[in-house]
Amino acid sequence: MNDRGGSEDARWLAAAAALAARARPLSRPNPGVGAIIVKAGRVIARGWTQAGGRPHAEAMALAAAGEAARGGTIYVTLEPCAHKSERGPACADLVSQSGLARVVIGCMDPDPRTSGAGIGRIRAAGIAAEYLPSTACEQSLSGYLTTKRLGRPEVTLKLALSLDGCIALASGESQWITGAQARAHTHAMRARADAILVGGGTLRADTPRLDVRLPGLEDRSPQRWVLTRGSAPEGWHTLPSPEAIAGMEGVLHLFVEGGAHAATAFLAAGLVDRLLIYRAPVLLGGRPGLGDFGLSSLAQAHGRWRMIERRQLGSDTLEVYDARNSHEG
Amino acid sequence: MNDRGGSEDARWLAAAAALAARARPLSRPNPGVGAIIVKAGRVIARGWTQAGGRPHAEAMALAAAGEAARGGTIYVTLEPCAHKSERGPACADLVSQSGLARVVIGCMDPDPRTSGAGIGRIRAAGIAAEYLPSTACEQSLSGYLTTKRLGRPEVTLKLALSLDGCIALASGESQWITGAQARAHTHAMRARADAILVGGGTLRADTPRLDVRLPGLEDRSPQRWVLTRGSAPEGWHTLPSPEAIAGMEGVLHLFVEGGAHAATAFLAAGLVDRLLIYRAPVLLGGRPGLGDFGLSSLAQAHGRWRMIERRQLGSDTLEVYDARNSHEG
Repeated sequence: MNDRGGSEDARWLAAAAALAARARPLSRPNPGVGAIIVKAGRVIARGWTQAGGRPHAEAMALAAAGEAARGGTIYVTLEPCAHKSERGPACADLVSQSGLARVVIGCMDPDPRTSGAGIGRIRAAGIAAEYLPSTACEQSLSGYLTTKRLGRPEVTLKLALSLDGCIALASGESQWITGAQARAHTHAMRARADAILVGGGTLRADTPRLDVRLPGLEDRSPQRWVLTRGSAPEGWHTLPSPEAIAGMEGVLHLFVEGGAHAATAFLAAGLVDRLLIYRAPVLLGGRPGLGDFGLSSLAQAHGRWRMIERRQLGSDTLEVYDARNSHEG
Repeated sequence: MNDRGGSEDARWLAAAAALAARARPLSRPNPGVGAIIVKAGRVIARGWTQAGGRPHAEAMALAAAGEAARGGTIYVTLEPCAHKSERGPACADLVSQSGLARVVIGCMDPDPRTSGAGIGRIRAAGIAAEYLPSTACEQSLSGYLTTKRLGRPEVTLKLALSLDGCIALASGESQWITGAQARAHTHAMRARADAILVGGGTLRADTPRLDVRLPGLEDRSPQRWVLTRGSAPEGWHTLPSPEAIAGMEGVLHLFVEGGAHAATAFLAAGLVDRLLIYRAPVLLGGRPGLGDFGLSSLAQAHGRWRMIERRQLGSDTLEVYDARNSHEG
């Protein structure tokens, strides 16, 4: 948002961040990066991280540009990598040999193999390289940055609530509170996640499929996890506690779907980075969506959540809240 | 809203409805009516019902216009009254003798002493008089129309909730969930009500003042009622059950402030016409704002409430919902 009225460089970085969304989630466990090569105000080539994490965005854009890259500027959401891999050369080397005149980077890489080394190697090759902090780039890399900074996936908690905060009638009836548009939106959100989790009670009560039922996106269905100390059905992973998410291999984005027990457990553990609240215009007087997660005063409750989006989905409303300071742990 | 793109007549009626807001609530127990006299596209005079119910809006506008009324059109939100009173002549007679060329009425009066007789007497005097149904006029007269049609005041239920539908922490701490702007808005809403009600538990726990703490509006403080089968403190009226609102003398607009027990009782009785939901961007995991009010299926829950307004009040959000078909009882 802050980039809207910013410089032309900031706007190109935001465009690269938008492009990076195409990489998510299939680039996992690598970050989904976007790159745009611009010359004389025109786009010469674009690239984003490919499925499985390679080739990287810069390699894709440079391959597409060929000789046309000479004298251009590459805008890249994340610092080009400085480490060689069996699967390809370091992007810092590719960029250094490209004939590009300038490199603009929206986010420095916290990975110690690259951090500062990528930009340093490019500068050493005589190319102007600068880091221009970009909110759009940070947001597009939020899952990767969370795993690097906090050692755990970024956690989004979904709540589908009535006006009075319920997820079911007193009788337990819960299908459906929100409408078809809101549920389709949830499927799109699943398609962007690496893993989805439900509580043990929800798994037993609803045996949810938790797959992505959107045409063309069936292959995006993420890992399925259940919060339990017990066993899980075939095809499901078990998570004994919210804190155990630190051990989820290759998961950048975790989508917690409920029910109330799982939602409460993640809030109690301080492990929710983002809230997605789908709200239907109904009153239920039924079962609450959250239990006591340990607040000892109202002062503790205020200022924790900042609304970043609100949109109408049929007669339902989606609100997205970010935890304040969630990356300052 | 429907009047926005409508005819010029509809727009003048909407203007008269906006003027009628000045009459509320001090016109009680009479309806707050608005009247505008227009000639050649210009406003000649305006009037609205005065404190205590007299003079009426038409009498005020005609007195202000004097001879200038001749040949003009009067737009009036409610059919001019046909019944004489000790406190003044019937407006139908005043209008008939005014020299006005035309009368446009936004809402017919359900009072049997006037219904149809007002417009009939004006037409008999040779003045063009028409009824042009106006949503704006209906809405401005909602309290009066509800008392006439359903034999009880219009009921607005206020809920001040967290994102998860709570009104307090598990510990009971509840001050404050919403911020200063939302609370000031509540005071303005009180100033428009004739009576305010809380539950017995809320009265004992919080001993709320429930007055209007806005400069210049202190005299608007409405009657104070408590939902209880027991006794009430000095200055308070008791209501043994929601259904007993039918006996509230001279009350067009009742504002139910909570707590959860009173809110639940009014919903269970089907006696809520409007919801005012002030929502703070906090999660509490505490005490729910509503209890079970007797829904037996989700199908019953859907389609009952239609959002008519949403506005931001600092970091809180106010949403207003109207009950569908509430006047079709």
